[in-house]
Amino acid sequence: MKSFVIRLSSYYRVVENLQETYDISSYKLAELSGVNAPQVRKDLNQFGQFGTRGRGYPVAELKKQLQKILGLDRKWCMALVGVGHLGSALLSYPGFKKHGFEVCFAFDSDTAKVGKKRKDIKIQNQNELKTTIKENKVKIAILTVPESSAQSVTDTLVSSGIKGIVNFAPTRINVPEEVEVINVDLTTQLETLSFYLSKN
Amino acid sequence: MKSFVIRLSSYYRVVENLQETYDISSYKLAELSGVNAPQVRKDLNQFGQFGTRGRGYPVAELKKQLQKILGLDRKWCMALVGVGHLGSALLSYPGFKKHGFEVCFAFDSDTAKVGKKRKDIKIQNQNELKTTIKENKVKIAILTVPESSAQSVTDTLVSSGIKGIVNFAPTRINVPEEVEVINVDLTTQLETLSFYLSKN
Repeated sequence: MKSFVIRLSSYYRVVENLQETYDISSYKLAELSGVNAPQVRKDLNQFGQFGTRGRGYPVAELKKQLQKILGLDRKWCMALVGVGHLGSALLSYPGFKKHGFEVCFAFDSDTAKVGKKRKDIKIQNQNELKTTIKENKVKIAILTVPESSAQSVTDTLVSSGIKGIVNFAPTRINVPEEVEVINVDLTTQLETLSFYLSKN
Repeated sequence: MKSFVIRLSSYYRVVENLQETYDISSYKLAELSGVNAPQVRKDLNQFGQFGTRGRGYPVAELKKQLQKILGLDRKWCMALVGVGHLGSALLSYPGFKKHGFEVCFAFDSDTAKVGKKRKDIKIQNQNELKTTIKENKVKIAILTVPESSAQSVTDTLVSSGIKGIVNFAPTRINVPEEVEVINVDLTTQLETLSFYLSKN
């Protein structure tokens, strides 16, 4: 069962690619998003009455409502910490910008990297992290540092005002309750796969 | 609540960094893995009686058992399809090899990339995918192609014998029941963050 926000994101993934002049039925939206139709209707009812019985939801309106509730009607400026292999790739990942997310600042503790540019972003010294994040009111950080420094960097991010962290470090990080963490632990995911494949 | 396999993976993450001569109590393992102690004991009981009451589990034995059940006592050779920004990064991501996973083959449909080397791996033409995967009995694929070709590449992978796919394409892919898919949808994860941040 997908959580509410994941369902909203799934609906948005469907409608963002549809012609704005179309209407979409809850059945079609259900099929394309992998959610059942009664759940789709229940979720969308929360936005107010804009679907028409027998006709469905106007795509343009649905898109606008989903953008609003998902916080996609604005640009999110992100700070990336750790410009290694994965960090570099994420700096140039086009999928972010397409959806209103942009890496605006990048930091590394390796002075050999500091001052160099990756995709128009100048790599800053990690000791400038706090000042830059505070001054620019950055709220989202991407953590691509090694396991060993994940927690200490997290502590600095949190004390600088970061409210959401996408954690690519292969370790758990501890944050206060008001900070959201999304763990993208590739190793755990591969282990899950190997577990299933080993059983067969 | 973490699923069984995610819990096993969490335990493994804890013990892999411990001295093999140590014993670890279920309480300590619970604390470090973020699982409650009764659940830890229940899970580990399934491997047979190797913990000692009051003394805990011998780390070396626990590590070996977890490796076995997680399928980590062997090397997993993976095929990566789509050598774009993200694909390139994953090719050189050191986290894989460290855990027994290795990208052995890489494919791209762009003939300008074919024949070039990334991290000792020669990029092959995507039309060689089927033959290479079958001949080498590859079971895991990493999908880093654009949304538009995700499903067609998936179909080819499945018909070539792939049993597990790590999907980085920002779209759902349909597979037969016996194939496991791990979705790493960065966009959805960022939307989840922006949803929570927008509420505050």
